[in-house]
Amino acid sequence: MASQHYQKIAAHIREAINNGQLNTGDELPSEAELCEQFGSSRGPVRQAMMLLRTEGMISTGRGRRSTVLARSESGSFDSSVSITAWLRAHGQQPGQETLLLARQPADEVTAGHLRLEPGTHVITLRRLRTADGTPLALETIFFPVDIGRHILDLDTDRDSVYTHLAQRDITVDNLTRCVSATIATPEQAEILGSAVGDPLLRVRKAASDQYGQLISYSDDFFVSENLTLSLNAVRGTPSPARFTPLE
Amino acid sequence: MASQHYQKIAAHIREAINNGQLNTGDELPSEAELCEQFGSSRGPVRQAMMLLRTEGMISTGRGRRSTVLARSESGSFDSSVSITAWLRAHGQQPGQETLLLARQPADEVTAGHLRLEPGTHVITLRRLRTADGTPLALETIFFPVDIGRHILDLDTDRDSVYTHLAQRDITVDNLTRCVSATIATPEQAEILGSAVGDPLLRVRKAASDQYGQLISYSDDFFVSENLTLSLNAVRGTPSPARFTPLE
Repeated sequence: MASQHYQKIAAHIREAINNGQLNTGDELPSEAELCEQFGSSRGPVRQAMMLLRTEGMISTGRGRRSTVLARSESGSFDSSVSITAWLRAHGQQPGQETLLLARQPADEVTAGHLRLEPGTHVITLRRLRTADGTPLALETIFFPVDIGRHILDLDTDRDSVYTHLAQRDITVDNLTRCVSATIATPEQAEILGSAVGDPLLRVRKAASDQYGQLISYSDDFFVSENLTLSLNAVRGTPSPARFTPLE
Repeated sequence: MASQHYQKIAAHIREAINNGQLNTGDELPSEAELCEQFGSSRGPVRQAMMLLRTEGMISTGRGRRSTVLARSESGSFDSSVSITAWLRAHGQQPGQETLLLARQPADEVTAGHLRLEPGTHVITLRRLRTADGTPLALETIFFPVDIGRHILDLDTDRDSVYTHLAQRDITVDNLTRCVSATIATPEQAEILGSAVGDPLLRVRKAASDQYGQLISYSDDFFVSENLTLSLNAVRGTPSPARFTPLE
């Protein structure tokens, strides 16, 4: 599908923000200047501004110049699914060391997340993930057997699980993540090379295909100091991030 | 602005998901059934499904029934800005105990976030926040003086800062949050009534108005077990949540 003119204008400005030509707090050129720069009428320029505003990248105010609020990232969906894709997108070398690959009965929590009966067999893959050789996360992925059987012949110390599944037409289309703070247990600390009690960012992910069929449920513990999570929100735009207080 | 027909259909289904009539994994009625239910042609029903898909609430697959993926939450922007609004939206009683309200020179980090010179005076408000009487978070908000002067006459043990500012036409329009995991220092543990070393979810927020002018920068530490953060992502839809590995 060919991009519309306003999408090209938005892509150009997005790129300028992401590569640091424009920084947070900087003013964008005026509407008239943007029209001249892109050989465009006002309509597409305004549409481009609205798109970037919805993405939380810029502010738009009547009569004032738009200013840069935050950077974005392209290709973020695959980066959200796969740690390998995520690290590569950031120019880092992904690494993995398989600690467990097994077919086991699911405990109650895991079964619940995969919408299976407790005790149903699942394929469990546990790996130490590294970035440029530094321990990053302890990753545990649970698959229903009909999905997980595809990775039993995979070199899980070398290859990306989700790339391998995609080659078998199993593609993640929806992702629900739950983020919380925990501290390293002795076992986790030993694997991650950190201290017992160090803060870890726990990310639980349920991945499903376009039909809503669950592909995997994973429970990952990241060394907190080795990553940041940022969220943008804009008034009037639905936000897929939500905090819920426990009752 | 009057809602379009597809928006009404989407709102109706969203409500059924949010109030639990429809649960995660449930199939939605067929397109034909939805057309009959809403007295609609196929166009608006399909548009409604696309909207809910973009919000990460349902899956849509060719030839298959749509299924429910996750709940959403209305009014989430004000809930993102104000802890008071957030707790009320979840039916909990917000409480606050002011620990500090002062005009002080900003340290380098705070000044940087507010785009001020280090040493510039800022208004600092630090409060223990509670939910239904239980300690929830240690909140510290920094305001530029021309904004913060408005809260010097506020009863910060009773009232919402952001409601008070909105009454003075200072309205948050954009929010950038950074989430990480930390552990409680002795001072934080004493205030929160938790143990030293307990996991805390740290949320740093920069709030700006529609012109990109900074209204506040805050640094909040939540008792991790008292809240969850969930993120939805859908292939083909830009996500305002992003994880970044540190270099």
